[in-house]
Amino acid sequence: MIRVIENGSITTPRGFVAGAAAAGIKYRDRLDLALCCSDRPAVAAGMFTMNAIRSAPVQLSASRTARGTARALIVNSGCANACTGERGLHDAESMTALAAKRLGLSTEDVLVASTGVIGTYLPIDRITSGLDVISLDISQGHSFARAIMTTDTYAKEIAVSSESEDGTFTIGAAAKGSGMIHPHMGTMLCFITTDAAVEPVFLRDALTRCVDQTLNMISVDGDTSPSDTVVVLANGAAGNRPLDQTTGAPFEYALAHVCEHIAKQIAADGEGATKLLEVTVTGAKSAGDARTAARTIASSMLVKSAIHGADPNWGRVVCAAGRSGADVDMGRVSMTLCDVPVMAQGMPVPFNEAALRSLLEESTVSIDVDLGLGSASATAWGCDLTHDYVTINASYTT
Amino acid sequence: MIRVIENGSITTPRGFVAGAAAAGIKYRDRLDLALCCSDRPAVAAGMFTMNAIRSAPVQLSASRTARGTARALIVNSGCANACTGERGLHDAESMTALAAKRLGLSTEDVLVASTGVIGTYLPIDRITSGLDVISLDISQGHSFARAIMTTDTYAKEIAVSSESEDGTFTIGAAAKGSGMIHPHMGTMLCFITTDAAVEPVFLRDALTRCVDQTLNMISVDGDTSPSDTVVVLANGAAGNRPLDQTTGAPFEYALAHVCEHIAKQIAADGEGATKLLEVTVTGAKSAGDARTAARTIASSMLVKSAIHGADPNWGRVVCAAGRSGADVDMGRVSMTLCDVPVMAQGMPVPFNEAALRSLLEESTVSIDVDLGLGSASATAWGCDLTHDYVTINASYTT
Repeated sequence: MIRVIENGSITTPRGFVAGAAAAGIKYRDRLDLALCCSDRPAVAAGMFTMNAIRSAPVQLSASRTARGTARALIVNSGCANACTGERGLHDAESMTALAAKRLGLSTEDVLVASTGVIGTYLPIDRITSGLDVISLDISQGHSFARAIMTTDTYAKEIAVSSESEDGTFTIGAAAKGSGMIHPHMGTMLCFITTDAAVEPVFLRDALTRCVDQTLNMISVDGDTSPSDTVVVLANGAAGNRPLDQTTGAPFEYALAHVCEHIAKQIAADGEGATKLLEVTVTGAKSAGDARTAARTIASSMLVKSAIHGADPNWGRVVCAAGRSGADVDMGRVSMTLCDVPVMAQGMPVPFNEAALRSLLEESTVSIDVDLGLGSASATAWGCDLTHDYVTINASYTT
Repeated sequence: MIRVIENGSITTPRGFVAGAAAAGIKYRDRLDLALCCSDRPAVAAGMFTMNAIRSAPVQLSASRTARGTARALIVNSGCANACTGERGLHDAESMTALAAKRLGLSTEDVLVASTGVIGTYLPIDRITSGLDVISLDISQGHSFARAIMTTDTYAKEIAVSSESEDGTFTIGAAAKGSGMIHPHMGTMLCFITTDAAVEPVFLRDALTRCVDQTLNMISVDGDTSPSDTVVVLANGAAGNRPLDQTTGAPFEYALAHVCEHIAKQIAADGEGATKLLEVTVTGAKSAGDARTAARTIASSMLVKSAIHGADPNWGRVVCAAGRSGADVDMGRVSMTLCDVPVMAQGMPVPFNEAALRSLLEESTVSIDVDLGLGSASATAWGCDLTHDYVTINASYTT
């Protein structure tokens, strides 16, 4: 039984505090430096970009997360610290050392993430000054979520509670998305806290399974970032016996809920987006085929443009499935748009165009494709392609 | 020695005539039905979409081209005759039968292609009426090229002449592109005529090699169409001894010139495009890596948006290479934008931003990426992503 906690954040789980500052990394007077800390050691798991271009913070945090424990997160927006070579790695380490000093921890207990422009160096002096003025508090979870935003139009947050055999535990999350979203092993930046005690291997496996069904199934523009990071810290403040493969089902279920919520928020708030696109592929020969077809449809520029214009141009959907690499037999494909049948067994189905157009104007548009070849299925999320996407991305570095 | 013939078309090679009509297939008073015919049997080769969704004309023309000879082409815009089942196949056959009757040929000698909206049936009666009013002439090559356009803003044509051991031969081509352009074995529609006599197997192999380096290296939106078709008809009117692997080099070189010209025209006239993007990847471990990296960069929505805004955001370029699947070692990558170095050995290179911005305003933008790992290279062509792309594709079926 999962309960969504009103106004929840990453500091809703017991034992976590957070804070943020306007350090002036790229803009003045905008929160751009965030800190989150557990009051006790926490089990940690993380997933990071599979792009061959990996930012310095990703390289550092991946190696530290592999140790299985961590206590704090320092995150900045405005500069990705990617393609910055040895100096970038040194800067990322300095960030964690500065945060560790501020928090009285050892450097290895601090994870770091950076998001923003690629190919520029971190202004370490501003991060130093920013850290000096951050005050940490359980009330500052929302500030953390705001400080990690770039072109996001709203903060992505959630907290839920559920029950283990030993009582209630809580999971909180903060994430950012917007552009360069086509995650390959984690999405842009997503930080998850929980007061549950969780056995490290189970935490890692549960995170992998949840992310593969949620954050790895969203796309804004097909471009994967060098900064993709998902980290979960489990500090055990709930007092339960550590959850594992036998007892962890309620935890994994709650974690999946959190990840799906965040994934949909990121897709819906894609750069310039006005609509959430939910693509479900059923009847696929294999799970891999279902995932590939769903993601290809949700990423198709032509599908995204048509959805923007509320245009029931279903031929583009089936063509995206056809080029996805999944097994597709044209004569067996059926499809609904917003639950209206438009194609059956590879042939057009007459529909009321005006009625379907008004359904396609809604803020969430669903596309359901039945490949008619097997029993595997998958869901992917995307957004429409708008003039604002072009406007935002034609002038990002300036 | 290749000579580009001024005002050339598919009827520039000897022995070919063409014509077009406004048949009213989707719009009134717009050329939308085209016919081209050789006055003698011709050797034929073709390449067709690898999308699992194949239009009816693609299915029919692919099987007829496999025979190695053909004499005529009938092409319509305004309706793709795709996802139309048995009726669609029957309609495609009817089109070729009608054309064959008009031309006094056997049905099997006629190839067919259709482009336009997916999932609607061909209005065969309008095609019948249209065929009645087409007059065929060597002066109507340009009409053929105009009639096959959809959202193209100009016709794509070229004719060149070159020399075989036996004298001069000529190659002409007409193509359409614009949207759903990310060819996988041929591009949207491209028709090539030549008066050279060419041995069938050599013609097929030469076409494959040329298309792989040119038409298969362009992208407008990453979406492959169910109608992609490239067909070449070689009627031997030049009177030379049939060209083969030993004697065919001048022909293949001229054919490559024609295909590259058409490929660049299609990329530059992508839907909404204002600029041609030319991406060259060198220093790759393998030819496959070079192709993959170049195509991924040329297709990246973030790269395309940045180029539109003349934004020297090179981080997006290297990230696209990084996610492409090609072997990429961040510390070895170097890059120039419009010949200005921006990245060397994985690190930023300072540059004059105002000067580079003005270069990025030009109508052709070049991106050169050296992966620093080997000696393979490839070039891909794309275009910028603009508001007009979204406008065009948000309202295509209506």
